[in-house]
Amino acid sequence: MSLLEPTLDHSVKLDEDAVLILDRRRFPQELSWVAARNSVEVARAITDMVTQSSGPLFAVLAGMILTARQHAHSSPTEAIDALRTAADRFIAARPTNNHVRDAVAAVLSDVDSDADTEAIVRQVEQAATRLDTRYRSRSHTMGGHIAALLPDNALVLTHCWMDTYLIEMVRAADQAGKRFRYLATETRPYLQGARLTAHTLAEMDQHVTLITDGMVAAVFSPHSKLGPVDALVTAADRVSMDGHVFNKVGTLGAAIAARAFGVPFYALVQAPDPQAPTAADVIVEERDGVENLSALGVRTASPLVKNGYYPAFDVTPPEFVTRVVTDRGAFDPTCLAEYGE
Amino acid sequence: MSLLEPTLDHSVKLDEDAVLILDRRRFPQELSWVAARNSVEVARAITDMVTQSSGPLFAVLAGMILTARQHAHSSPTEAIDALRTAADRFIAARPTNNHVRDAVAAVLSDVDSDADTEAIVRQVEQAATRLDTRYRSRSHTMGGHIAALLPDNALVLTHCWMDTYLIEMVRAADQAGKRFRYLATETRPYLQGARLTAHTLAEMDQHVTLITDGMVAAVFSPHSKLGPVDALVTAADRVSMDGHVFNKVGTLGAAIAARAFGVPFYALVQAPDPQAPTAADVIVEERDGVENLSALGVRTASPLVKNGYYPAFDVTPPEFVTRVVTDRGAFDPTCLAEYGE
Repeated sequence: MSLLEPTLDHSVKLDEDAVLILDRRRFPQELSWVAARNSVEVARAITDMVTQSSGPLFAVLAGMILTARQHAHSSPTEAIDALRTAADRFIAARPTNNHVRDAVAAVLSDVDSDADTEAIVRQVEQAATRLDTRYRSRSHTMGGHIAALLPDNALVLTHCWMDTYLIEMVRAADQAGKRFRYLATETRPYLQGARLTAHTLAEMDQHVTLITDGMVAAVFSPHSKLGPVDALVTAADRVSMDGHVFNKVGTLGAAIAARAFGVPFYALVQAPDPQAPTAADVIVEERDGVENLSALGVRTASPLVKNGYYPAFDVTPPEFVTRVVTDRGAFDPTCLAEYGE
Repeated sequence: MSLLEPTLDHSVKLDEDAVLILDRRRFPQELSWVAARNSVEVARAITDMVTQSSGPLFAVLAGMILTARQHAHSSPTEAIDALRTAADRFIAARPTNNHVRDAVAAVLSDVDSDADTEAIVRQVEQAATRLDTRYRSRSHTMGGHIAALLPDNALVLTHCWMDTYLIEMVRAADQAGKRFRYLATETRPYLQGARLTAHTLAEMDQHVTLITDGMVAAVFSPHSKLGPVDALVTAADRVSMDGHVFNKVGTLGAAIAARAFGVPFYALVQAPDPQAPTAADVIVEERDGVENLSALGVRTASPLVKNGYYPAFDVTPPEFVTRVVTDRGAFDPTCLAEYGE
């Protein structure tokens, strides 16, 4: 039996005059697409959380193609300037994850500044298409490495939304003849776990049980009636070379609890970031704390409450990370230099 | 300036034919009262979470009076049987907290089985009234002990809803000339923190900032831009004599994270439970996991998700507890025998 294709594996589309981005703030309760008609709108969609995790990578690759095509009748210099401006906007949209930075840099490095505009458009199309395919294939390779670390029937706790990494982990496990069971945190305030992760796992016919974010330590504890959890597995938005894992807020608490109860924590990232030698080199995004006061647009807090605090990511030090799992295998977080160039 | 009286300090009322219980599942979005017309309905209201934390104590004290009055024209034997049956129902309503068990036992022990029914009714009324007053005054004393442990202007993180303990802590601090700032977790799935705690603190003119349950470790971490948190302070539904703290799920993860980052954890309970020598003597309630799939009645999870897991409480071992703060002062969790009889 082959696994069904999950909806979120293809949540960015490029049409003639816009990048269409599946609105993950509403999915799966609604299936609606935001049409971003230029680089400003693509960047705004990322800032506004229309898409996240792997989504911004796919959105900016499409955004680079759209920008190039919109300048097909400009001079080569104007086209390249527009691509650089778009790249800067995309990078500035959210600061913590480095996928976007690396992707737009790779696209720009494939552009020959001596070429004519028609050739530049073609170079951007080819580079973006190649990077999209490469991101998926590296994720699949990484999925094979994490699947190899877990026994068949493992109970895996995951936090937030691993996106392509999750989908490829399930596929790689299936190819290896393994099946895991999943515990997903709901991941407030945006509920990516309750909506995106749980929905995708269910679409792929995986067994998934939903817990709230405060229940992680309880299910790791020997007092839990669920039985032992085999591993905590999350994506990482960024991993600095000194082994600090930046990921959706909540990962740190889960990692500390996992360590306290002897549960291994595997953080998945295609590669550590050579541009971030230490944790201090990464900007941790803070979002508007008012987002904590409601759920799916419904006010959940008392009307008297004015203040929320929303650090969007947290920083897990290497002592709470068992392995950083990359496309080149699993590394001790204190030995990431071994990943190589 | 004196502190305003918070609404939830009086959320149980007794009228002629019912115990009126403020419905905390909807407060403060709605101010509605559930009328429990007999002991069965009082017990059901507790099981169904109409009230929790200190609320069940006040509800069963009123429920004992109601039951006695409803048997004012029965024989003394019938009245006492009815009181015992009511007591058993109340104790069975939820298993983890021991307030209800102790309160109904204290009422029954004040009933003279040789008295006439009129006297029995009066004895129940007097015992219940005395226990209500005593619970509040012991909580106030305990509030003084925790306030003494914290510096003026301390930033205090609290989880779930400490009810009378919280209200009395704020009052005791105020009397000691101190003012704390509060971080409250929202406490999914019932959102007691976002609704009850945050609302009550705002009513009492305290500064409160709301975070989601997954943000606790991040705000304890040295990477937090909020600055240092001075203490984690929660109530305990039960503390076993060997120093295990039973409280709303999420407390364990908060306590482990607090320990990892050097933040003290103070668990408030009027007294440890001599009937629970060890953690194994306490039943940890599990509730229906479907409660994780929505917030305030709005479905938050993907419609494809069928399973949730909801351990209502967790068990924090003594190594993660700095002090158990009681009405007789603060104790090392490994020295609770010093509390005395």
